[in-house]
Amino acid sequence: MGKIKVGVAGYGVIGQRLADGVAAQGDMELVGVADVAPTLPVMALFESGMPYDLYTAVPEKINLLTDKGIPVAGTLEELVQKVDIMFDATSAGIGAKNKEIYKKYGVKAVFQGGESNDVADVFFHGYANYEKGIGADYLKLTSCNTTGLIRAVDCIDRKVGVEKVAITIIRRVADPGDYHRGLTNALQVAPAPNHQAVDLMTIMPHIDATGILVHTPVTHGHIITSVITPKEDISKEELLEMFEAHPRIKVVRLADGFLGNASLFKYARDLGNKRGDMYEIAVWEESIVKSGKDVMFAINIPQESVVIPENLDAIRAACGMQATRDEGTTETNKYLGMAYTRE
Amino acid sequence: MGKIKVGVAGYGVIGQRLADGVAAQGDMELVGVADVAPTLPVMALFESGMPYDLYTAVPEKINLLTDKGIPVAGTLEELVQKVDIMFDATSAGIGAKNKEIYKKYGVKAVFQGGESNDVADVFFHGYANYEKGIGADYLKLTSCNTTGLIRAVDCIDRKVGVEKVAITIIRRVADPGDYHRGLTNALQVAPAPNHQAVDLMTIMPHIDATGILVHTPVTHGHIITSVITPKEDISKEELLEMFEAHPRIKVVRLADGFLGNASLFKYARDLGNKRGDMYEIAVWEESIVKSGKDVMFAINIPQESVVIPENLDAIRAACGMQATRDEGTTETNKYLGMAYTRE
Amino acid sequence: MGKIKVGVAGYGVIGQRLADGVAAQGDMELVGVADVAPTLPVMALFESGMPYDLYTAVPEKINLLTDKGIPVAGTLEELVQKVDIMFDATSAGIGAKNKEIYKKYGVKAVFQGGESNDVADVFFHGYANYEKGIGADYLKLTSCNTTGLIRAVDCIDRKVGVEKVAITIIRRVADPGDYHRGLTNALQVAPAPNHQAVDLMTIMPHIDATGILVHTPVTHGHIITSVITPKEDISKEELLEMFEAHPRIKVVRLADGFLGNASLFKYARDLGNKRGDMYEIAVWEESIVKSGKDVMFAINIPQESVVIPENLDAIRAACGMQATRDEGTTETNKYLGMAYTRE
Amino acid sequence: MGKIKVGVAGYGVIGQRLADGVAAQGDMELVGVADVAPTLPVMALFESGMPYDLYTAVPEKINLLTDKGIPVAGTLEELVQKVDIMFDATSAGIGAKNKEIYKKYGVKAVFQGGESNDVADVFFHGYANYEKGIGADYLKLTSCNTTGLIRAVDCIDRKVGVEKVAITIIRRVADPGDYHRGLTNALQVAPAPNHQAVDLMTIMPHIDATGILVHTPVTHGHIITSVITPKEDISKEELLEMFEAHPRIKVVRLADGFLGNASLFKYARDLGNKRGDMYEIAVWEESIVKSGKDVMFAINIPQESVVIPENLDAIRAACGMQATRDEGTTETNKYLGMAYTRE
Repeated sequence: MGKIKVGVAGYGVIGQRLADGVAAQGDMELVGVADVAPTLPVMALFESGMPYDLYTAVPEKINLLTDKGIPVAGTLEELVQKVDIMFDATSAGIGAKNKEIYKKYGVKAVFQGGESNDVADVFFHGYANYEKGIGADYLKLTSCNTTGLIRAVDCIDRKVGVEKVAITIIRRVADPGDYHRGLTNALQVAPAPNHQAVDLMTIMPHIDATGILVHTPVTHGHIITSVITPKEDISKEELLEMFEAHPRIKVVRLADGFLGNASLFKYARDLGNKRGDMYEIAVWEESIVKSGKDVMFAINIPQESVVIPENLDAIRAACGMQATRDEGTTETNKYLGMAYTRE
Repeated sequence: MGKIKVGVAGYGVIGQRLADGVAAQGDMELVGVADVAPTLPVMALFESGMPYDLYTAVPEKINLLTDKGIPVAGTLEELVQKVDIMFDATSAGIGAKNKEIYKKYGVKAVFQGGESNDVADVFFHGYANYEKGIGADYLKLTSCNTTGLIRAVDCIDRKVGVEKVAITIIRRVADPGDYHRGLTNALQVAPAPNHQAVDLMTIMPHIDATGILVHTPVTHGHIITSVITPKEDISKEELLEMFEAHPRIKVVRLADGFLGNASLFKYARDLGNKRGDMYEIAVWEESIVKSGKDVMFAINIPQESVVIPENLDAIRAACGMQATRDEGTTETNKYLGMAYTRE
Repeated sequence: MGKIKVGVAGYGVIGQRLADGVAAQGDMELVGVADVAPTLPVMALFESGMPYDLYTAVPEKINLLTDKGIPVAGTLEELVQKVDIMFDATSAGIGAKNKEIYKKYGVKAVFQGGESNDVADVFFHGYANYEKGIGADYLKLTSCNTTGLIRAVDCIDRKVGVEKVAITIIRRVADPGDYHRGLTNALQVAPAPNHQAVDLMTIMPHIDATGILVHTPVTHGHIITSVITPKEDISKEELLEMFEAHPRIKVVRLADGFLGNASLFKYARDLGNKRGDMYEIAVWEESIVKSGKDVMFAINIPQESVVIPENLDAIRAACGMQATRDEGTTETNKYLGMAYTRE
Repeated sequence: MGKIKVGVAGYGVIGQRLADGVAAQGDMELVGVADVAPTLPVMALFESGMPYDLYTAVPEKINLLTDKGIPVAGTLEELVQKVDIMFDATSAGIGAKNKEIYKKYGVKAVFQGGESNDVADVFFHGYANYEKGIGADYLKLTSCNTTGLIRAVDCIDRKVGVEKVAITIIRRVADPGDYHRGLTNALQVAPAPNHQAVDLMTIMPHIDATGILVHTPVTHGHIITSVITPKEDISKEELLEMFEAHPRIKVVRLADGFLGNASLFKYARDLGNKRGDMYEIAVWEESIVKSGKDVMFAINIPQESVVIPENLDAIRAACGMQATRDEGTTETNKYLGMAYTRE
């Protein structure tokens, strides 16, 4: 099998990172990215010397790009014809329209959490239901919070079984650089149960989940506290061991200076990670407590980048690159350098 | 029995509100308040025409006050001699020193949540253990989060029993006007379990409690989500009914515009409440969800004012003004105007 | 002359405060307020026992109010017929429509800063151009920043003349309780010159003004720094004296604990001012510096309440209640209790 | 001349970036960095595979590092003996103590803005007074705001002369990841004039400068508005041209999506700059206004990284690497890739 050819529609917060993620996979080829206007990410691509070819998603507006001197390699429709599979990271609702183009040329596609579920055949998570995605034509990924949460729940579920989950999502309200949404000196309560609990049950129907989401005026990562009822009693030490063995979970300690979501962002910047991104969720060791059989702990969700690995898993499943969850996620992890475990 | 004479040591965020609370009780008399320096609250008292007599807590620094032209009615030691009971709302640690003065003159005292537990004979909550406070000389109140949380837990516990509680405290990090502490664009995780869960178990030893606290950069009220396992199954409607019948709990709806802690503060301001304060905790109707037998819901804790009613209850218990929880809390509620129930 | 009868259309942040302001004037009568829906301010009015009569601004939606049990005294059109003058504090754009009703009944009206200038005959500021408003039918008030800024500039201008002004507005981005707008961990630059500088020149055409506005994620008051070139050299002490003599300017000191906009809000709350409001702008004594002949200083604009006094001045001018700026503003100040001067 | 050997004491926010900056200079060699404890930057260095040798600044606490398995190359005193010049980026006050070590071994040193001026022979800015640093043994750099501000002022001053400057600094209160300082929903006014204006006059004594600083609760860059009186009248277009020609000034436009400090941080992240850093100050084109002869504009100061270029200039001057400002800054700019000019 040659390299799988991939295109990315929508070069925003997620699209940029999907493109970089594909470019890092030794067995995939990034054919190009598509967008409409000279947004800051597109201008940054241009100022960086066009490492990726850019296609216009709206041909009649090509001058928005060419007027800035940005070279345009063609149209989205042309890009689609050159690839095996598309990542669709456009604004919610656009993906459903783009799907017509993908269908026209018999190209598979992976949609993001903002699209409605019926755009896809499979609602996908690399660790929780990889096998369901095998050979599928249209997959939708879980959103950032659900993706990260399921990693932790699935990790416990595979060891001892999970009966139910009650989560509190302390949600960052905007990404760094967002000016079109924000919250100032306020916490905002969302109607319960939150969609992440509902989505978790869709992906893992044997678990009872509920939860409350509260928006907070910060930008560097959601924090989720989970009260989990396992089927078998587990100790804090056993739980820590499970988390430390998971390639997409990083155990951190308050005592080491990881005081909250902003410490993790700072650390990722200091590591030299592109954009200060992290693919791992983090679990705070000192947050783990027990109450009877229940375990409770806090995790950090790096909202801009956490979904990238599971998206790459989706390509592996859909294109039949690896036949099992273990093989598929292992390849993704290898190319993303996610073998970190704390000594 | 004549009016109970009360003094307040420490005229800060809590002290001011305790003074106002005492002044509103028909069967208590506020003799005066004590502080050291011309802080903003003391200057506001002065600019308001000295509705309360001010005593100096540190006689050798009386000129800090008199240099500003502020009339000083005497010393803290003199104030103590004129009262039946003192509210001590000084900074953490000072209360233990002041206790020597209170003991010297055989005056009872009520300390706040910041003092260490051993300053007092009884760790007190007006609804959960009123009877323990009856006749006691030194009582310590629970802190703001614990006070509010216990109201809700006790409310359920008295109806159907509560087995265990797992809470997530989304904590406001500073009060409006605080410049000595703050957090900027960061969530901060505290070591678990938080002291509020531990304190709840001290007050209500038959309940198993744990929890995680996360600091957030806002000023208008903590939000606590609780996962509560009751002894008997209750419906959402039954829970709502219990909360609506409680004089110190206000049920609010997102649909009515109560979107978060800042809405509640705005509403209290628009009601004309002094300082925009609320004595009630609020429960969001749309936050109530069930998971098996567990109920989960979100409450708001107005951190500056929520402890005032239970503090007044403490005086009623300690001074033997009312012999039972029902009688004591009813009097407090009556004078504070806490009969609000949503139609 | 009997009491001037006043109605208020729009019972939001400004409308509520206009209503309270009118109610405090011994020579005015608040006939009623008009709004459409059971917003939090309207619910607070209801829970407070309807101190003001409420009229529906959209008769066909009266059930929005009556369904909540809120008594409705009539329609906006009926209210207009009972008054001499209307305050229009509706959302921007609605005022122009309401003007048709006001004209139909020959009722004067005062519009707020959000309306376009051509809704009114006079763009008004109580201190800067009171005389222009005398007898006028339709006046538009300056917005909060402009109102507060002009107080300071006019104060200097009347003593020594002002040649030019360059301002930097550090703007609070939302009011407490706002969930429909906000900014998170970001400063936002607005195109220069800002409208406040332009508006200042409209009101005071002999002054050259320019400036830059930057939005900041806070809720408790704008801070404006001004570089002012006076016609005659003045010392810092002379400037302080001018400001201290002005009934609508409060001189404060960092050394006294007034560290920023949040200290002022806290202080107003502790004073027991309704909603924690202040009518005065504040000038920080330690912010005053000179550079050659230029003076530079920082003022605080309490955005929710600062425009109330000048609005009341507008009624006095429009209805011919007082013939001069001094007489008009003095009456407003008297009834609002604005005689504060620091000792 | 062989490569100049450089060491860095203090591996925090600035120290890390100085080390990276030195490593990027083709004519300098980074011998190593020194710190005390396994802070997050030190842990990130370790997790990155120790690209730079680490020395312990406090030999008796070496186990803080070795207990984590971090290899230690020696002591600060040993590092000093291997270099020609030290960057001292330790906490304020430590630099003065370290100077004793530098003197003992006859090693030059460059201190940061937090140290007191008397630690150094020259208070240095690469563009404004490069020549003063030539051959000097101990230099102190201006702080981040002053460094960035002087770039803009010097740029104008060399073309048309500058008479006076009045600045308003809208200061970010903490860096991303800071938990030891912060501000929540408050603006804080500092005593005027701010030290940056005073420092500017020390570096450029022919200019009269003053200003006011206001702290704001954000993390991504200070914004400074400047009112500048040039000696000769200049148009907005001429000013833009000057700024666009300056290698360390980037002209940006609101119309292009650069709405504030957070847009610039996002853009630098999307460019793939390490840590999302920028060396350039940015000027907003739409912020430039004139008032008579005065020009006013807003600049952004990326506080974590802006001082790096001028620090490298300092080494060039002190070590006699280049004899003139033009030659010295040109070499620094070349190695940092600062040739960006907008088309």
